[in-house]
Amino acid sequence: MKLTVKGLFNDLQKIRDNAPLVHNITNFVVMNNTANALLAIGASPVMAHAAEEVAEMSSLSAALVINIGTLNREWVEAMALAMTAAQSKGIPIIFDPVGAGATAFRTQSCLTLINQVAPTVIRGNASEIMALAGCSVRTKGVDSSATQSDAEGAARALANKYACVVTVSGAIDLITDGNKKFQVRNGNPMMPKVTGLGCSATALVGAFCAVNDNAIIAATHAMTVMGICGEIAAKQSAGPGTLQVHLIDAFYNLTNEQIDSHWTHQEPK
Amino acid sequence: MKLTVKGLFNDLQKIRDNAPLVHNITNFVVMNNTANALLAIGASPVMAHAAEEVAEMSSLSAALVINIGTLNREWVEAMALAMTAAQSKGIPIIFDPVGAGATAFRTQSCLTLINQVAPTVIRGNASEIMALAGCSVRTKGVDSSATQSDAEGAARALANKYACVVTVSGAIDLITDGNKKFQVRNGNPMMPKVTGLGCSATALVGAFCAVNDNAIIAATHAMTVMGICGEIAAKQSAGPGTLQVHLIDAFYNLTNEQIDSHWTHQEPK
Amino acid sequence: MKLTVKGLFNDLQKIRDNAPLVHNITNFVVMNNTANALLAIGASPVMAHAAEEVAEMSSLSAALVINIGTLNREWVEAMALAMTAAQSKGIPIIFDPVGAGATAFRTQSCLTLINQVAPTVIRGNASEIMALAGCSVRTKGVDSSATQSDAEGAARALANKYACVVTVSGAIDLITDGNKKFQVRNGNPMMPKVTGLGCSATALVGAFCAVNDNAIIAATHAMTVMGICGEIAAKQSAGPGTLQVHLIDAFYNLTNEQIDSHWTHQEPK
Repeated sequence: MKLTVKGLFNDLQKIRDNAPLVHNITNFVVMNNTANALLAIGASPVMAHAAEEVAEMSSLSAALVINIGTLNREWVEAMALAMTAAQSKGIPIIFDPVGAGATAFRTQSCLTLINQVAPTVIRGNASEIMALAGCSVRTKGVDSSATQSDAEGAARALANKYACVVTVSGAIDLITDGNKKFQVRNGNPMMPKVTGLGCSATALVGAFCAVNDNAIIAATHAMTVMGICGEIAAKQSAGPGTLQVHLIDAFYNLTNEQIDSHWTHQEPK
Repeated sequence: MKLTVKGLFNDLQKIRDNAPLVHNITNFVVMNNTANALLAIGASPVMAHAAEEVAEMSSLSAALVINIGTLNREWVEAMALAMTAAQSKGIPIIFDPVGAGATAFRTQSCLTLINQVAPTVIRGNASEIMALAGCSVRTKGVDSSATQSDAEGAARALANKYACVVTVSGAIDLITDGNKKFQVRNGNPMMPKVTGLGCSATALVGAFCAVNDNAIIAATHAMTVMGICGEIAAKQSAGPGTLQVHLIDAFYNLTNEQIDSHWTHQEPK
Repeated sequence: MKLTVKGLFNDLQKIRDNAPLVHNITNFVVMNNTANALLAIGASPVMAHAAEEVAEMSSLSAALVINIGTLNREWVEAMALAMTAAQSKGIPIIFDPVGAGATAFRTQSCLTLINQVAPTVIRGNASEIMALAGCSVRTKGVDSSATQSDAEGAARALANKYACVVTVSGAIDLITDGNKKFQVRNGNPMMPKVTGLGCSATALVGAFCAVNDNAIIAATHAMTVMGICGEIAAKQSAGPGTLQVHLIDAFYNLTNEQIDSHWTHQEPK
């Protein structure tokens, strides 16, 4: 299990060739950006949340992305239906616990969902991951109140408990299956000033899991693409407004050469 | 009934002079873009979906745009109320069956709505139009799984059944009332990589129907503006992120001269 | 009580240093822009609307922003819960009556909310403010059908009735507590062509109220920042698409020198 530029680019090419359908039940803030990120990387996004159709839509999809950012009771119920349908078809489920640890309702809704159907990958910031692992932490709205290194133990525990991959986003991203660990050192400090780039990362994990069954590699590929494209976009951007726009262009135009020149993984290229 | 540059520009000037109120009940993914497209072209958009107010809001408007992209049962009920109010006032109704043919709930909700109140214009992609016409087709989420030429018969049948205009978007747009047919050959291949440009097209049809009672001409004008502005924007854009932004600028700045120089209709100028 | 460049920049610096949590219950059209405006100015935005969590989320926040732009009954109920929680903790409440005066449901929902819990600041356009004050006016969807000078009496009456600050947005913004009055002469005529900049202004008022207990000064600071950044962004923009993007960059990069050079208040610098 090695990370290589070639492996990442192969996955990217598969996404571009096959345009896998990625079903998103996500939050109102980021729906547009998430759809555009998925389209730009080459996938085919669909947003659908009605109880009447989520199971059918998930069953048609190559990946299911669940993001609780603006949850309410009905949406959580629909998420459960979609996750159950995806699980029964063997479709990868990516889970983003936005704001877990900020309110009891968020933490509890997340635990209810993942206790019912274990996700393939959970991606959150440090305090969200710590909240799901039962650590005493208070997330600041949707922003982390902890660092990635604080969250490493929680990430491993969570990965082992649910037999899934856990990704902790931050200055250095951590991706673990409870045993093996990868780190992504790409990215730019302006990225957290754009709303919902974590949610876009989660959606990209969905696209990569749609074409690669190895979830820890797929998640690491997605986080690497997010970081590299963030670096490319930041160079052209005077602030978070232009960064958001150029990031979409960077996904669309990403080349093998760019991946190679921004690659920071320790593993052999 | 001829298409002319002058006719299109006259409609555009009326929109800019009168800022017609366009009531949208549309999906969460595109609300911001749709509002910005309508503002940039010169209209006054409003989004309102509560059962308590949709009939009153539609009654005040110059056009009603219904888009089922992120439907649920309550929203469909509100759409029915708004459509009934608009019909009773003679206000044009534009209908966008996003994802019809992907799930039974989408196809069925569309048919329920349009069987109750026939729209003035239906705008969709090829497989959405085919699904409404009863063809056996499986829409890929919200992306078409068919070509426009596949859909021509379905478009004519649908237009005749509901005595409405049907627009099939694609590389070449088709606009028909079941008898007469127009085609729009403007546009750029990068446009489908921006989420919701079809929804923006539907909203523009609303703005043009607000100032022109001839629905097939109004719809063709709107699709031509979308295609021409897409061409103008694409020239300035490195990818779908910048394209989305420049498209709004192009709507805002569109001149008679630009329409004339990009005009591709066979009919005499 | 004087307005000074130094006072404004001190508030801005406090926002950047402390990243106050601003809880928004706002409309679907502007959620992304609102979150990005708050992040760019230095605050930490969160969007949450479920009855199960709004009181807890508001209680954690430094300001609560309520915007009824795409209201329905459930959302209005959640707004009431959040406003009650914020009031009991002494957290400033900023209220945006989007489209009040367009439908009875909008006007009535606003009055129900503010009669139950008086906001700290109400920000609207002229006809929205007049509608809340009981003037006979018909708002055109979400666009004003009156001028700021029409609304001055209504603004003073409303401010006195609720013992709050009222802000009327327009070519010249008016900010009053019923007695004292400030005016902001910054801004650019292209700004109303971008959807939701009024909603962004309301959110900025939230950020400034989070760091400054003097609500009329905080609201005037926020409106001044919006106007100055609009001027800076408009210079770089060919239309409303690019304006929306550059405005976010302008918030992020705003300097003391820029504030000083765009300052138009009559009061001594």
